[in-house]
Amino acid sequence: MSDNKIPYKIYLTEDEMPKAWYNLRADMKNKPAPLLNPGTHQPLTAEELSPIFCEELVQQELDDTTPFIEIPEEIRNFYKMYRPSPLVRAYCLEEKLGTPAKIYYKFEGNNTSGSHKLNSAIAQAYYAKKQGLKGVTTETGAGQWGTALSMACSYFDLDCKVYMVKVSYEQKPFRREVMRTYGATVTPSPSETTEVGRKILAAHPGTTGSLGCAISEAVEVATKNPGYRYVLGSVLNQVLLHQSVIGLETKAAMDKYGIKPDIIIGCAGGGSNLGGLIAPFMGEKLRGEADYRIIAVEPASCPSFTRGTFSYDFCDTGMICPLAKMYTLGSDFIPSANHAGGLRFHGMSSTLSQLYHDGYMEATSVEQTSVFEAAEMFARVEGILPAPESSHAIRAAIDEAMKCKETGEEKTIVFGLTGTGYFDLVAYQKYNDGEMSDYIPSDAEIAESIAKLPKVD
Amino acid sequence: MSDNKIPYKIYLTEDEMPKAWYNLRADMKNKPAPLLNPGTHQPLTAEELSPIFCEELVQQELDDTTPFIEIPEEIRNFYKMYRPSPLVRAYCLEEKLGTPAKIYYKFEGNNTSGSHKLNSAIAQAYYAKKQGLKGVTTETGAGQWGTALSMACSYFDLDCKVYMVKVSYEQKPFRREVMRTYGATVTPSPSETTEVGRKILAAHPGTTGSLGCAISEAVEVATKNPGYRYVLGSVLNQVLLHQSVIGLETKAAMDKYGIKPDIIIGCAGGGSNLGGLIAPFMGEKLRGEADYRIIAVEPASCPSFTRGTFSYDFCDTGMICPLAKMYTLGSDFIPSANHAGGLRFHGMSSTLSQLYHDGYMEATSVEQTSVFEAAEMFARVEGILPAPESSHAIRAAIDEAMKCKETGEEKTIVFGLTGTGYFDLVAYQKYNDGEMSDYIPSDAEIAESIAKLPKVD
Repeated sequence: MSDNKIPYKIYLTEDEMPKAWYNLRADMKNKPAPLLNPGTHQPLTAEELSPIFCEELVQQELDDTTPFIEIPEEIRNFYKMYRPSPLVRAYCLEEKLGTPAKIYYKFEGNNTSGSHKLNSAIAQAYYAKKQGLKGVTTETGAGQWGTALSMACSYFDLDCKVYMVKVSYEQKPFRREVMRTYGATVTPSPSETTEVGRKILAAHPGTTGSLGCAISEAVEVATKNPGYRYVLGSVLNQVLLHQSVIGLETKAAMDKYGIKPDIIIGCAGGGSNLGGLIAPFMGEKLRGEADYRIIAVEPASCPSFTRGTFSYDFCDTGMICPLAKMYTLGSDFIPSANHAGGLRFHGMSSTLSQLYHDGYMEATSVEQTSVFEAAEMFARVEGILPAPESSHAIRAAIDEAMKCKETGEEKTIVFGLTGTGYFDLVAYQKYNDGEMSDYIPSDAEIAESIAKLPKVD
Repeated sequence: MSDNKIPYKIYLTEDEMPKAWYNLRADMKNKPAPLLNPGTHQPLTAEELSPIFCEELVQQELDDTTPFIEIPEEIRNFYKMYRPSPLVRAYCLEEKLGTPAKIYYKFEGNNTSGSHKLNSAIAQAYYAKKQGLKGVTTETGAGQWGTALSMACSYFDLDCKVYMVKVSYEQKPFRREVMRTYGATVTPSPSETTEVGRKILAAHPGTTGSLGCAISEAVEVATKNPGYRYVLGSVLNQVLLHQSVIGLETKAAMDKYGIKPDIIIGCAGGGSNLGGLIAPFMGEKLRGEADYRIIAVEPASCPSFTRGTFSYDFCDTGMICPLAKMYTLGSDFIPSANHAGGLRFHGMSSTLSQLYHDGYMEATSVEQTSVFEAAEMFARVEGILPAPESSHAIRAAIDEAMKCKETGEEKTIVFGLTGTGYFDLVAYQKYNDGEMSDYIPSDAEIAESIAKLPKVD
């Protein structure tokens, strides 16, 4: 079955792993717009950001000129426990589809957090430790980011306070227990532990919480407790920087075997995986050295690229965070409750938004029943049960491979398999039982939340 | 932190993967005693076994002279999707313990079934397919074996009927959903689908099932439906043969870097992982070419090696299967309900039992709270949430490493990390909440079940 002696899995050696992250912004002519102070609408300075983020992370957030930033040895040592991640040739999927396309995927799920989130969690924990902080706070919805952060904090002996949306806390006890096993304090949000939490509980006694509320609580705890900072798992420039390790490894593995991709596909919620996977390829494209089709895949029920507007907006539904210029559905937009497939963020990384705006990449949206259909097929032939988020990329990769079958083109497709679906089996059960449906927001629904965008000149 | 340029993870290339399984029995002077017909107490013939198992598996079960049996290319191709598995140098654990010992572990959890069980499941499915069968039946308790088998059957397009102990079916819906996603039919046992199931339900309307009952249903379905056979995930010689891929890879990876282990440690329930891990090392020991300390680790609540008797017994609690000569607590023995850590089988592989009887290996038993303590420490420093079963080996490896700390000896320890604990979080929660306790069966309890052993001359 194998082809040109390309193995099923390409592993780099530890020596071949990247020693620096690649900062895509350095090669962008049109830089991503700066974060704005939500009060003054002026670009945020390092001073303004440092009560929220660690100092070195603030520098990374603001640095749009330095192309390579060294990965500290401590982080590289941690990476060695679960990286390099394999670049897998999907021989069995190709055979199943009967396509002449050559399909590869970069698999980020071989770690206990189950996703690529750990790549940035360990970096953010390292800088917090280096600055002598006591701990960090964050919010988590389904729990992927919270799990990654609790692992990273445990490694550096940092305190980790996770505010977990109450409904997830109750319905996803397994994620919660992984975090507790790693020593994190997991608090269902809204809680009595914060002022904002108490306020919300008083006003809405029966509420099951929301991501916006959890963010507010995490930020309050970070700013009120000396020695704490708040950390975020996606959207930010610093996160895309750390995630460039995915793309750098992918490119190094492909270069080793002389493989040149035609199409690069990633799922997009806040953009951390997609931004990381495409980074070095997009760099070549920006510098005019190579051309690639780059496709962002988002859920039809939360279509920020394909149906949102390119505008300044709040990153959080609580509207307390800085303003970012991005493709957004409005911070008021909440995907339908029947949406089980993740990628629920209303906006998108500023870096990716600028690149999309400038025509360097495409975007497509897919419905969740077709996503789970692709997930199931993939699981059966490739032996990995994929996360629903990752399965958006699988869906698009299969669709592109089937186009190749029609045209006979032997295109090389690479996609990001961001993680495993071991904690998403409630959604799989829904699919297995034939109880999953699709939801596409109406134009009026999107227009309504976009109408509430903050006015920025 | 790294040592002599030994990487964190040693991966073989696909070319270096084993092309044949190693049949440990070929090098044993005292062969494991044959399976007996439960009615006549005569050794079972190939003819008697073939209505239950596939023909080639019957040959493998009975063959105690051929040292190497080729791994068919189809199985090797499947292995390439998740193998070679990494041999990991536990640098972080060593540092945490402050031990001069060098600790390695062979990690079998990087696949969706989450354990080493897939190594034999794919082999058993392959031979069933090759024989032109329609499908296979099996039982599953917690679901690890059922998951592995459903993945293997899905790959070869075989029907897979899993009888899952009813209480697990209801309390572990996630394992069930993985099996369903792979297309298996999962039936809570006892069920109305079999004669034995209907009989048990009539007699005990409220029963939550048992492994013995599930085995009986699975065997009934296999023998009554043309084109079906029954398969088993541990204990049998054929399973140990397939699992030798673990030990062969481990030895090849160590040889590549000139590493010679002093101590080899594996957890032992039915013995499939331990038998596979130690196979080539034990072969050298049997042939007088090398010496190793080999340690089986079992739960104090189900201590077949350390407190059982070496005798013929039924493999199943339903007493319908062949008799095997093994260390056993009696097929009537059921570990305490508070035992959460797996490895609940009352007996032990005949091959390992003979080797233990002949003094080629040691055995030790550990209590579950100390097992989960080791699991938590390991998860925090090595970044992998281990299965409770695997954590028995972690416990023993830590204990040996701490002895080295006392004596200053730089011993090389390798243990089998059989799988991940992602579906065992109910047990972790119990431990996190301080609600886990230990149970050690009394001598009287063990004597009572051993008194019921079948009388074989």
